[in-house]
Amino acid sequence: KINGDRLWDSLMEMAKIGPGVAGGNNRQTLTDADAEGRALFQSWCEAAGMTMGCDTMGNMFATRLGEDPDALPVYMGSHLDTQPTGGKYDGVLGVLGGLEVVRTMNDLGIKTKHPIVVTNWTNEEGTRFAPAMLASGVFAGKHTQDWAYGREDAEGKTFGDELKRIGWVGDETVGARKMHAMFELHIEQGPILEAEGKDIGVVTHGQGLWWLQCTVSGKDAHTGSTPMNMRVNAGLGMARMTEAAHQIAMAHQPHAVGAVGHCDVFPNSRNVIPGKVVFTADFRSPDLEKLTSMRTQFEARAKEIADELGLGLEIEPVGHFDPVTFDETCVSAVRNAAERLGYSHLDIVSGAGHDACWINDVAPTAMIMCPCVDGLSHNEAEEISKDWAAAGTDVMLHAVLETAEI
Amino acid sequence: KINGDRLWDSLMEMAKIGPGVAGGNNRQTLTDADAEGRALFQSWCEAAGMTMGCDTMGNMFATRLGEDPDALPVYMGSHLDTQPTGGKYDGVLGVLGGLEVVRTMNDLGIKTKHPIVVTNWTNEEGTRFAPAMLASGVFAGKHTQDWAYGREDAEGKTFGDELKRIGWVGDETVGARKMHAMFELHIEQGPILEAEGKDIGVVTHGQGLWWLQCTVSGKDAHTGSTPMNMRVNAGLGMARMTEAAHQIAMAHQPHAVGAVGHCDVFPNSRNVIPGKVVFTADFRSPDLEKLTSMRTQFEARAKEIADELGLGLEIEPVGHFDPVTFDETCVSAVRNAAERLGYSHLDIVSGAGHDACWINDVAPTAMIMCPCVDGLSHNEAEEISKDWAAAGTDVMLHAVLETAEI
Ligand SMILES: NC(=O)NCCC(=O)O
Ligand SMILES: NC(=O)NCCC(=O)O
Repeated sequence: KINGDRLWDSLMEMAKIGPGVAGGNNRQTLTDADAEGRALFQSWCEAAGMTMGCDTMGNMFATRLGEDPDALPVYMGSHLDTQPTGGKYDGVLGVLGGLEVVRTMNDLGIKTKHPIVVTNWTNEEGTRFAPAMLASGVFAGKHTQDWAYGREDAEGKTFGDELKRIGWVGDETVGARKMHAMFELHIEQGPILEAEGKDIGVVTHGQGLWWLQCTVSGKDAHTGSTPMNMRVNAGLGMARMTEAAHQIAMAHQPHAVGAVGHCDVFPNSRNVIPGKVVFTADFRSPDLEKLTSMRTQFEARAKEIADELGLGLEIEPVGHFDPVTFDETCVSAVRNAAERLGYSHLDIVSGAGHDACWINDVAPTAMIMCPCVDGLSHNEAEEISKDWAAAGTDVMLHAVLETAEI
Repeated sequence: KINGDRLWDSLMEMAKIGPGVAGGNNRQTLTDADAEGRALFQSWCEAAGMTMGCDTMGNMFATRLGEDPDALPVYMGSHLDTQPTGGKYDGVLGVLGGLEVVRTMNDLGIKTKHPIVVTNWTNEEGTRFAPAMLASGVFAGKHTQDWAYGREDAEGKTFGDELKRIGWVGDETVGARKMHAMFELHIEQGPILEAEGKDIGVVTHGQGLWWLQCTVSGKDAHTGSTPMNMRVNAGLGMARMTEAAHQIAMAHQPHAVGAVGHCDVFPNSRNVIPGKVVFTADFRSPDLEKLTSMRTQFEARAKEIADELGLGLEIEPVGHFDPVTFDETCVSAVRNAAERLGYSHLDIVSGAGHDACWINDVAPTAMIMCPCVDGLSHNEAEEISKDWAAAGTDVMLHAVLETAEI
């Protein structure tokens, strides 16, 4: 079993970097805080006897050698970046859990045939630079690196420039590494495990996603002196499309969600009818047909709303992945480990996207989930117990040992 | 008649300060650009033989002496601040038109019994610091100076600190000046004069206004892994309230308007259900009963929407004025001047709020309007013709000469 106290101490230590305003974290990707978090992780890996590699997308790979020089490594990993008002565990648990697995193997003098690699994937959250899981997506060949480098934040800074600025452009070609398998430990970010009283979620599938970024164009005009019938109100269009996103998700129940989380109004002045609104609708389902249907219906309805109000409308998909089925052998390794260790477990579908969803396309992959309080995530109040964190990491240890061959 | 070319040149010169991105201006109140515009206006006033005074709200008063030392001055004025994506004429025409009147009087050696004062009122637009017409409101005793000093912009900077920073805290007690009368020349910002083919709007009334700032509180949560029935979505609440504001205004037709121009979503991340939205609904009518009814209905409907979605809701009025009836004698002076000069004219109601609306409470006041292309304002593409500007300024000259007694 892993050392739950040591894992917890490391989680709390990392949480000091990029503190939020309400007990959580704001350690967004490629900020100074991100660089500080990376340096701390690197120092811990080196203290645990690992060597750090880094690719041109800033993905970090800490390697513990195996006994067979020809065997491909077994990977563990997730991400250290957070939401602007994020929690202390989303992503971080999967990276520091991987480190704790290695520390435990060191303590017990365990040797494996396959090398072990602990990974921090760059820009998983996708808040600052859409889409989410950007660097694991480039690793898996879903996007080109040039395209990723050109992604812009709200201030127009590019991913490529910011990666260089914080000093984390590595020398490895992204995606060149081959993997024997990869495991990602993550908090559930949903309410099921806690409600069912289970220690471990064995993740068999992941929801697919569409992020549809809509640019609604109207005409800036005075809110007081412009008659109602002369208005071309982009804000009203956004309001109707936001309601439509909600209604369309409700009409696809169960196993479908939809919401608008990002919305910028221009010029954002109390006495100016908005001339432009840029917002993103987020649709998800584990069912590809439902996912496609929500996108199609939303695009049609948004077009109708725009036409009714005389608005311009452009819809750009800024994030997409199909529903995922994880590798049966890796999933079994997780289920078996939970069983062996006596942890209660449940097969579940991941509601969120994860780096594992992309990596699953290029290597056998599975995920382990632990409960979180009230299913709350992407909130500074996100909380888990030390026992939950330890149980998930125990399961990862055993699944990795089975896969990496002692 | 005034010198239309000179007036136009001054308008174009002022428009070089705080240029926008699309041919208009971004010279928001108490910015460096505002300070630069003030300095230019002061230099022009001094070159025209006037002396500049300034009160503790930063209101500027350029005086041309009269022949009777005991006579109260006749004021002309408006504002030099602009919207973030504002036009070159909104406000500026009224200030530089006043200056042109004085320059013309100098050219013609005209002396008046009453002194003449040209005024630049601070923070008319209200975008950076709500409410609009803040400094004329303090002048007229509608707000205390302490309250005004404490108004915050989106970054939390206060009006008082920013006024000090740009160096325009004057030494005059605000509101201490007494006025014989005040005239404000302004572009219509609406479509009526152009549509009716009239040169001059004789403004008899002004619409009343409510700005209702709504803070909608939900719960930040993951857009993917949070089931639909567990969401407390402040963004959906905002969308429904935005639609409600529109519907309520439509139900009060004619002579009523309503819209949401300001809206900030938090944390504004594509994969976070908004935990908070702050937005402002703007309702206006020349009819006090309708104005009150729109406010009451909106507050009730917003509460219902919040309750349906489990959201918190706080509504803070951040701007208000009742419908205005301008001074009969001053209005007649405007109408007579237009008639005498042979300009076509129409009695109209101001759709926007103006400094004149507050000053009307403490001194006999009237407004002169000139047409603007397509009724477009609060838009960088705002446009007027040189002839329209000259006609409005001619009418102001004659109304002022009648009132200030040659
Ligand atoms: N796990 C997680 O929150 N990932 C961010 C990408 C997503 O929105 O699902
Ligand atoms: N004239 C003008 O645009 N004033 C700003 C205040 C308002 O919103 O009416």
